Amino acid sequence: MPSSTFSGTVSTPKLSVAVDMGNPFLNLTVDAFLKIGAVGVTKSLAEDTYKAIDKGSLSKSTLEHALKKLCKEGVYWGAAGGVYIGTEYGIERIRGSRDWKNAMLAGAATGAVLSAVGKKGKDTIVIDAILGGALATASQFVNNHYFY
Amino acid sequence: MPSSTFSGTVSTPKLSVAVDMGNPFLNLTVDAFLKIGAVGVTKSLAEDTYKAIDKGSLSKSTLEHALKKLCKEGVYWGAAGGVYIGTEYGIERIRGSRDWKNAMLAGAATGAVLSAVGKKGKDTIVIDAILGGALATASQFVNNHYFY
Repeated sequence: MPSSTFSGTVSTPKLSVAVDMGNPFLNLTVDAFLKIGAVGVTKSLAEDTYKAIDKGSLSKSTLEHALKKLCKEGVYWGAAGGVYIGTEYGIERIRGSRDWKNAMLAGAATGAVLSAVGKKGKDTIVIDAILGGALATASQFVNNHYFY
Repeated sequence: MPSSTFSGTVSTPKLSVAVDMGNPFLNLTVDAFLKIGAVGVTKSLAEDTYKAIDKGSLSKSTLEHALKKLCKEGVYWGAAGGVYIGTEYGIERIRGSRDWKNAMLAGAATGAVLSAVGKKGKDTIVIDAILGGALATASQFVNNHYFY
């Protein structure tokens, strides 16, 4: 059983959480799940805060609904991040090189997995896989500053 | 008027197009428009190819529809890429540092611009801005391998 330690350091303003499961693949996917999940939670929080301000009122049921949505979005975004990073890492190990093709394949796989888990039909799964591959490729081009 | 040259080199298997408008900001946004637009066109092509194979037939009207969709998606993705990269470059110059906050702000601006151009209501524009910011932040985390 790989030794697993959980260490957290809190130093304002930077909060960094290091997860070491003794296995790079697990480290990556768990880390991605936590960090991309946090982005999903923040997004949901921002949306519901805007809606509450816009409506000017905040009932108990709205708060409960917002909390449930928060958790669902956090898990959904976290799962997408974990599946993507884990797949990209696996493809990188298989192909032995790191380029936009890994991102495209990992994006397609993530789109298909999320769609299948959501019990969508065959056509939707293929379309979501194509969308996932396109988004991952575009994001790779944009983020890896192929331009400058 | 900045001198502008358009040079293209074709060498199999790598095709690289260099656009030099004599201004880094213009270079970046035009380059992003072309490259992310190409991703949008490829995505649309893959979708319509799948639908044609699935249906087993290809009429003239379907072909025309597919061609129109191809151009629309190419322009849409290209515009999103251009606005995003241009905004991120501007924010980076203003803040003087390159981190995920630039991506978050640029993603939010891009989401709002695309939504406003699509003549959506105020609420939708804000929700799309929040989504754009979240997607850009997640993509920055995932692509800049903050993990390994």
